[in-house]
Amino acid sequence: MTNSSAFNQPLGGNTMPRFGGPATMMRLPAQDSAKGLDACFVGIPMDIGASNRAGTRFGPRQIRDESRMIRPYNMATGAAPFERMQVADIGDVPINTFDLKKSIGIIESFYDEILSHDTIPLTLGGDHTLTWPILRAMRKKHGPVALIHVDAHSDTNEDMFGETVAHGCPFRRAWEDGCLLNDRVTQIGLRATGYAADDFDWGRQQGWRVVQAEECWYQSLKPLMEEVRARVGDAPVYLSFDIDSLDPAFAPGTGTVEPGGLSTWQAYEIVRGCAGLNLVGCDLVEVSPPYDPSGNTAVIAANLLYEMLCALPARR
Amino acid sequence: MTNSSAFNQPLGGNTMPRFGGPATMMRLPAQDSAKGLDACFVGIPMDIGASNRAGTRFGPRQIRDESRMIRPYNMATGAAPFERMQVADIGDVPINTFDLKKSIGIIESFYDEILSHDTIPLTLGGDHTLTWPILRAMRKKHGPVALIHVDAHSDTNEDMFGETVAHGCPFRRAWEDGCLLNDRVTQIGLRATGYAADDFDWGRQQGWRVVQAEECWYQSLKPLMEEVRARVGDAPVYLSFDIDSLDPAFAPGTGTVEPGGLSTWQAYEIVRGCAGLNLVGCDLVEVSPPYDPSGNTAVIAANLLYEMLCALPARR
Amino acid sequence: MTNSSAFNQPLGGNTMPRFGGPATMMRLPAQDSAKGLDACFVGIPMDIGASNRAGTRFGPRQIRDESRMIRPYNMATGAAPFERMQVADIGDVPINTFDLKKSIGIIESFYDEILSHDTIPLTLGGDHTLTWPILRAMRKKHGPVALIHVDAHSDTNEDMFGETVAHGCPFRRAWEDGCLLNDRVTQIGLRATGYAADDFDWGRQQGWRVVQAEECWYQSLKPLMEEVRARVGDAPVYLSFDIDSLDPAFAPGTGTVEPGGLSTWQAYEIVRGCAGLNLVGCDLVEVSPPYDPSGNTAVIAANLLYEMLCALPARR
Amino acid sequence: MTNSSAFNQPLGGNTMPRFGGPATMMRLPAQDSAKGLDACFVGIPMDIGASNRAGTRFGPRQIRDESRMIRPYNMATGAAPFERMQVADIGDVPINTFDLKKSIGIIESFYDEILSHDTIPLTLGGDHTLTWPILRAMRKKHGPVALIHVDAHSDTNEDMFGETVAHGCPFRRAWEDGCLLNDRVTQIGLRATGYAADDFDWGRQQGWRVVQAEECWYQSLKPLMEEVRARVGDAPVYLSFDIDSLDPAFAPGTGTVEPGGLSTWQAYEIVRGCAGLNLVGCDLVEVSPPYDPSGNTAVIAANLLYEMLCALPARR
Amino acid sequence: MTNSSAFNQPLGGNTMPRFGGPATMMRLPAQDSAKGLDACFVGIPMDIGASNRAGTRFGPRQIRDESRMIRPYNMATGAAPFERMQVADIGDVPINTFDLKKSIGIIESFYDEILSHDTIPLTLGGDHTLTWPILRAMRKKHGPVALIHVDAHSDTNEDMFGETVAHGCPFRRAWEDGCLLNDRVTQIGLRATGYAADDFDWGRQQGWRVVQAEECWYQSLKPLMEEVRARVGDAPVYLSFDIDSLDPAFAPGTGTVEPGGLSTWQAYEIVRGCAGLNLVGCDLVEVSPPYDPSGNTAVIAANLLYEMLCALPARR
Amino acid sequence: MTNSSAFNQPLGGNTMPRFGGPATMMRLPAQDSAKGLDACFVGIPMDIGASNRAGTRFGPRQIRDESRMIRPYNMATGAAPFERMQVADIGDVPINTFDLKKSIGIIESFYDEILSHDTIPLTLGGDHTLTWPILRAMRKKHGPVALIHVDAHSDTNEDMFGETVAHGCPFRRAWEDGCLLNDRVTQIGLRATGYAADDFDWGRQQGWRVVQAEECWYQSLKPLMEEVRARVGDAPVYLSFDIDSLDPAFAPGTGTVEPGGLSTWQAYEIVRGCAGLNLVGCDLVEVSPPYDPSGNTAVIAANLLYEMLCALPARR
Repeated sequence: MTNSSAFNQPLGGNTMPRFGGPATMMRLPAQDSAKGLDACFVGIPMDIGASNRAGTRFGPRQIRDESRMIRPYNMATGAAPFERMQVADIGDVPINTFDLKKSIGIIESFYDEILSHDTIPLTLGGDHTLTWPILRAMRKKHGPVALIHVDAHSDTNEDMFGETVAHGCPFRRAWEDGCLLNDRVTQIGLRATGYAADDFDWGRQQGWRVVQAEECWYQSLKPLMEEVRARVGDAPVYLSFDIDSLDPAFAPGTGTVEPGGLSTWQAYEIVRGCAGLNLVGCDLVEVSPPYDPSGNTAVIAANLLYEMLCALPARR
Repeated sequence: MTNSSAFNQPLGGNTMPRFGGPATMMRLPAQDSAKGLDACFVGIPMDIGASNRAGTRFGPRQIRDESRMIRPYNMATGAAPFERMQVADIGDVPINTFDLKKSIGIIESFYDEILSHDTIPLTLGGDHTLTWPILRAMRKKHGPVALIHVDAHSDTNEDMFGETVAHGCPFRRAWEDGCLLNDRVTQIGLRATGYAADDFDWGRQQGWRVVQAEECWYQSLKPLMEEVRARVGDAPVYLSFDIDSLDPAFAPGTGTVEPGGLSTWQAYEIVRGCAGLNLVGCDLVEVSPPYDPSGNTAVIAANLLYEMLCALPARR
Repeated sequence: MTNSSAFNQPLGGNTMPRFGGPATMMRLPAQDSAKGLDACFVGIPMDIGASNRAGTRFGPRQIRDESRMIRPYNMATGAAPFERMQVADIGDVPINTFDLKKSIGIIESFYDEILSHDTIPLTLGGDHTLTWPILRAMRKKHGPVALIHVDAHSDTNEDMFGETVAHGCPFRRAWEDGCLLNDRVTQIGLRATGYAADDFDWGRQQGWRVVQAEECWYQSLKPLMEEVRARVGDAPVYLSFDIDSLDPAFAPGTGTVEPGGLSTWQAYEIVRGCAGLNLVGCDLVEVSPPYDPSGNTAVIAANLLYEMLCALPARR
Repeated sequence: MTNSSAFNQPLGGNTMPRFGGPATMMRLPAQDSAKGLDACFVGIPMDIGASNRAGTRFGPRQIRDESRMIRPYNMATGAAPFERMQVADIGDVPINTFDLKKSIGIIESFYDEILSHDTIPLTLGGDHTLTWPILRAMRKKHGPVALIHVDAHSDTNEDMFGETVAHGCPFRRAWEDGCLLNDRVTQIGLRATGYAADDFDWGRQQGWRVVQAEECWYQSLKPLMEEVRARVGDAPVYLSFDIDSLDPAFAPGTGTVEPGGLSTWQAYEIVRGCAGLNLVGCDLVEVSPPYDPSGNTAVIAANLLYEMLCALPARR
Repeated sequence: MTNSSAFNQPLGGNTMPRFGGPATMMRLPAQDSAKGLDACFVGIPMDIGASNRAGTRFGPRQIRDESRMIRPYNMATGAAPFERMQVADIGDVPINTFDLKKSIGIIESFYDEILSHDTIPLTLGGDHTLTWPILRAMRKKHGPVALIHVDAHSDTNEDMFGETVAHGCPFRRAWEDGCLLNDRVTQIGLRATGYAADDFDWGRQQGWRVVQAEECWYQSLKPLMEEVRARVGDAPVYLSFDIDSLDPAFAPGTGTVEPGGLSTWQAYEIVRGCAGLNLVGCDLVEVSPPYDPSGNTAVIAANLLYEMLCALPARR
Repeated sequence: MTNSSAFNQPLGGNTMPRFGGPATMMRLPAQDSAKGLDACFVGIPMDIGASNRAGTRFGPRQIRDESRMIRPYNMATGAAPFERMQVADIGDVPINTFDLKKSIGIIESFYDEILSHDTIPLTLGGDHTLTWPILRAMRKKHGPVALIHVDAHSDTNEDMFGETVAHGCPFRRAWEDGCLLNDRVTQIGLRATGYAADDFDWGRQQGWRVVQAEECWYQSLKPLMEEVRARVGDAPVYLSFDIDSLDPAFAPGTGTVEPGGLSTWQAYEIVRGCAGLNLVGCDLVEVSPPYDPSGNTAVIAANLLYEMLCALPARR
């Protein structure tokens, strides 16, 4: 249980019962900025970009709360992230909950600051609108990036209700802003209904690989992830994981529910399949606590964020 | 059960089981505009003005759903609103959920249209921001109005997070816009904590009567309502009822919960105590369905809206 | 904790943890018939007479489950029912859940059998339709009885959806069958809306005392119960307590919710106020578990049933 | 978003936020009869035929509510039902909730009327008893029909508690009434426990194809549906889909839960696999809202009903 | 919003949305020890002393989470605690969840340490067993103390299931240990059932004032608190507030529910009525989050803890 | 429905509605001891050994409640356990909820008594600590046993928080006590995170077969169970099934949730795959009712316990 590492360690269950201690991510130390960190957990408590159910404003709080059980070692992959990286929870972005457009600017500035410390941000959302300003900050730091986007929806709408800033539009905006390496973009899990029969083809027209959910059913996604890794190569890559990519059986606590989605087994394979890539940032979005009072959707989200941490490239 | 009246009647339980039929308010007929109506129920599905918990965007839907039990006659007061008024449910205001400020304009225009038909609107909220544009429309129709404002909060903040449009500010904005007859304003139920010890005195300084919750505990509010009626006189008066005025024991399903509030008994006395006034509009706001899955908060809201209908002045 | 009494005792918390042991009422012994009992608890798991929400079919199970905390002595009144009466849980009436009318006959026969043992039945409902066949059995045993009926509704409808057997009609049917001493009937807690402005006057026209909820607000009901006791005198009297008489703040788990009801404080005063009367039977109906997952509505129901037991006349 | 089609369109999210607008199926226009419709959605709010948990009386209301997110185009199959059919929501059948047997007659008459307009009914249940009277109406219109019955239970009991009308008996009754083409009947998903080891063989003895759930585990049902389509051929065929066919992980909100069921992935394959058949009617039954407050079971049900619409044969 | 005070301030809603920021009590700064503090919030995440429902182990986490709305100024009393005291959240006591008796020692040592800094502890429980070791620490610091104990139960059992350490025994143990000034002890809110008719008289026999719940119904407790203050005088006094003293209507989220309790109105009067006393410590115990997913019980608990802070004696 | 067998039969749904009757396991007769029984259901209502969420103390009550739907015959395997075994529900072990270590002794003695009747116990948990004392009793009766342990966790911790008795340690303790045939132990479903990268290798070092969850994904476990049966051979074997082995999609109601687990389909295959073995006892542990108010996790648990009964070896 004791650890002679110079790195921050999650507060262990033999030191403080799991149901006590600070409600930070994995009960890690909190700090005010990303200074000195290889990776950081950061929350964006926001739901004003959501088009159906709200509630994701409480996503970061519940994910942190339910992350309390996660121990430091990954029993499936052997990863030991806290032996090789300095990680902390740097708290939440102070969005303006009364003005979505202003919040976009606040987020972008916040991530500019994180990236100035060469820290990899792991974001706890919040509605998916937030990925746009993060990708804008990423472009300034890294140039255009490859993208692995796991979601029930393409989120490439030209607009929603006439607005260009909304949780159905972030990847269209990022594309317009030149944030993406189009030949290195993959979308996984898309499904359900749309406003036109070819809604998902827009991405394909940009050169993206679009894997609809039906292609994934009943099978391991390890082969798909091999393909994805080949596609990404050594480019800087951003992983954006919308919890509604999962079937609602696995992740009921979200706002725009689409049956027929991925399983948790596949979600693990996707995130673990990112190991070896040059990940520059990750997010886990759209957890809506009021729709899963058991907290289990947040447990899954917390574990996927931990798996993202495990998949980060070696820094030291 | 049959009714020879020329007026719309709620669909009765002997014609269609209570758990079936249209999910309109009280299972009344729906129509697209207020044309020909003495009073209308109208929803504003909005929560982007909320500062703590979200979810009031589903308030109108749940209030309508849970209004299905209400029968036409008021057993306490003998009121028979459907014998003397033409009433319908005119649906929802199509707010722009991605832009709070634009939604304000949409609401104001919508109410201008309602008022052009001389119809009294009974509004199903929705977060409290919505009362500001309604009061603006009221002023255009009626000039400044008297106000009976029932709430846990004064909602007279200069701003929130630097924004002037938010659910803590509508009455400050309405005051600035000259919508209120300051000597005929009463606030009931205010309580809890504030950013300054004299937060509630701002209204008093404008000449408003401010009744903090503690003044109401353990007693009938009939005497208070006598005073309120005297204060209002024959001025046009608007009733804005925030469900969080009630103690959370009575109305758990709301977003900014403050213990120590009013009882349902007092809520009935307040609304029934408005009978005889020249009511020009009423709203019931801040019902947040995700926080009361039983639906009972919406049942209370629906009944208070019905009581408001009963309290409306004779039109014909 | 040990008890030398010859009477059945509830299983105590020092013998078996409260969360274990048999899920009988108060963890009393179960037996198959009422033979040898002064009083019995009996369940009627039924909801097919309900007009709005269902779920009361699980009322008896949840009331028994949540009765596990009740200890034998009444700290308010000093009553010690298990020192003077033989009490057991005789299980449930096997109603026909697919045929409401046949269930009425099954219930009546079951109570004929109970009464043949001179046992006082304390019934766990179940929807309120069940009181009609119980009262029919009571009349055969005792002749017409006095009635104390606590409810949000009068339950004296001529019919519902054309049917004479439904949870809104039991007291009309009992009246038709000559089960009631009309000058000794009291209804308490009636409120809300109706199909005609004089719905509650039908009982008054039969000579009943009808106390609407508004008469009860903010005050002790001890004076009312003095009046009720005087009215009942020494007649055999039946107590029928619909949990929806309580305000939904106190008893959210029920099917036909009407705000503005009684408080738990008043409920205790009503039941305790029956002590000294010649109670021949009691029921507690309309607990609907799916609408209160906390179980607290059932806790209240269980305690009121215990208070009924305490109020029973001395038998030995 | 605009649509020049002559056909009804679902109210889009760019016209009215998803959480507002009419609570009809897919926010389609409501109309009072099936006149002029190719297909209609119709609710049967009933649970008095249920043997375990109740609550399906609210199924139609919740399915409609949660259908609000469904957009017009099917991203998996490319189907565009609103470009080729006139569809509306015709409301609910006014069942007699106090008399199951009378309700059967009411339903049959209601469907006779629908079928008189050559409209294909898509039914929102409601407990499974309702399929019997629908099949009786179907037989009058089409003669005996083929059947695809997806369920955890065979629902071919001779009787339940001595009653022949109950949610465990509809297909036995339909068989007795000559409604079924026995060599074109398939049952999928049956499992769990029974009153005799050969309960599921009764159907086999009539020539039905019975596919127990275990045969479906871990695999695509596309091959099975090929077989089913061959079996049905060009006969008129009715699809009856009990949501409890799904494993409770996927559809927790139902009344007679049996673990080990189908996945949502398989459910989609079954319904989509019906495309090309001569479907004359479909139902989706046994959604019980009180047992899934998240609403997700209803989301699944709504999507399956939409998929049924997509699978209907071309009419024009 | 800005504050020039030298004292810690709660993080305001205009700096960070209420649904973000650290999940400490009132979003105050966290620190590891009580050093330099006038008062501190401290959690004891424990439920292994509970005899009925568990879950209070999550009480401290949920109370902190739901304290996020509380602003610094008390609108009822004008108190401004953060203008006159240094306050922080010092985290949780690392109890041994597998050994109740060892946990008692851990708690006592932890409070010895707190008291060594002359800090007044405000404790977030946790089951009521924890008050015993706190009172032991208090005695070492202050000698025997006066006690104001608000509860549904007397918690003076000699033992439970043969054990002397349990949540029904802390005040019996404290009495044995000489922690209490018997003539300055008051118990408020006791009710329901017991193992003997005179259970509540044990305290009276020690000279305690015992106010059963029935004495409190329907009325302000200001007169009672006058009496309590006179009784306490200038002795050091400890306030132990069990949330189950409240009626379950007001505080459903607790483990040993007893109907007929206090109202929130009365709870405020009790705590506010302690102002002016020489309070040396306070606790708020028995909040069980799993039994109130709305979080409202924790909201009440958080507000009562804030009111306790407001009632503390001036220190500087 | 009638059964001429000499053996106890579950109370059938045609005799008593499923929602009524005794809340025993499968509505079987209750008896006080195991005397005369081939197999018995027995509850251990305990959660004080749990390290994260509590609530399993109510596991036995909820499993019994939700077992009400299970009919006597197994439709998948044809098993008819009530035709060949005498089975009853013998109630709960009276654990000492205030002292975990004493509870261990109580449990061991209780099982010594059961085994003295040559009865096979099927245990309803309760937290997993309980398996240690059961295995101690088993060893006294049968000598060391083979073990099939299905779980998300290895439960072989040396200690937790310094304690050797906790729900993470039972199999380490049993191993120390010589209860296990190390070459006949299989663990299935282990996953997630640990305190060291080789946590799961401890068992392997003892010769155990450890099957991590990832090895199970997407496939039938019939081949694995063939291997397991070969491994066990004809040794007496104990089956310990922790419900958290299932993915939380399937079994949300538990305390230490780990995503990525087994499916219900696999759970059935595991238990059914034990048929033919010399099963000497089984348990189903860690069902925590407060975290699944729908009751469905308990439905699954009840069905798995029934499947265990079906898998027991022929006795007569």
